Amino acid sequence: MTAAFEVAGRIVADSAWIADWPLCQVRLMDDRRFPWLLLLPRKPGLEEWTELDDADLAVLAVEIKRAGEALGAVATFDKLNVGALGNIVRQMHVHVIGRSVGDAAWPGPVWGQGTRESYADGERGELVLRLQGYLAVSR
Amino acid sequence: MTAAFEVAGRIVADSAWIADWPLCQVRLMDDRRFPWLLLLPRKPGLEEWTELDDADLAVLAVEIKRAGEALGAVATFDKLNVGALGNIVRQMHVHVIGRSVGDAAWPGPVWGQGTRESYADGERGELVLRLQGYLAVSR
Repeated sequence: MTAAFEVAGRIVADSAWIADWPLCQVRLMDDRRFPWLLLLPRKPGLEEWTELDDADLAVLAVEIKRAGEALGAVATFDKLNVGALGNIVRQMHVHVIGRSVGDAAWPGPVWGQGTRESYADGERGELVLRLQGYLAVSR
Repeated sequence: MTAAFEVAGRIVADSAWIADWPLCQVRLMDDRRFPWLLLLPRKPGLEEWTELDDADLAVLAVEIKRAGEALGAVATFDKLNVGALGNIVRQMHVHVIGRSVGDAAWPGPVWGQGTRESYADGERGELVLRLQGYLAVSR
């Protein structure tokens, strides 16, 4: 029996599905303080960067780049932050975040800073569609 | 005239050279609170993940894995953290950090938490040599 890929409940609750890429599921973090995507390699049980083989790692690194470019197409920011921590939710997930001078956590990291602020429903839906639209034409 | 690769002064001051890999310079962060390597792609002027081409990204992702494995050979920890932030020092550098339940920043990120604690000279030198020795036999 092969275990299926599932997204951890806490990530499902805090983010919205955008796309399934060759390696990763792409999700929008539901935090209007920062333009923020999550990439989850679609491998059951995966926790650590070091568990991926070299071929998957090559895809992962390019998908991180592609996520950063997608954020840049829908938001303005000064610096991209990329992080794979997993101290709390162990399922491997890579954060790709657009940071701006003076944002809610600047210049520190976003994790554990302040409280997540959900998008309004219409605002989140519009951003999801803009990201999906960008990705559809940028393949 | 081609600009040479140079390591930002703040990174030089806070870390010790370990090795030059095909893409990255590898350095030990001089902070005994955490087993912590820095990877700096040896490209002048590089700041963002999205500035690297796909071939370099493939190498970067594998070098991150190799750094995590090297840390695992010289230290014990519960979770690997990988991060490329650059909000303060803009030169692109990837943190690869071994995290342990109950460490000085657990379960938060290490960046901006508390104060760096330098290794004693002998301790740092020994760890540098152990890392270099591991890397020499693991090629």
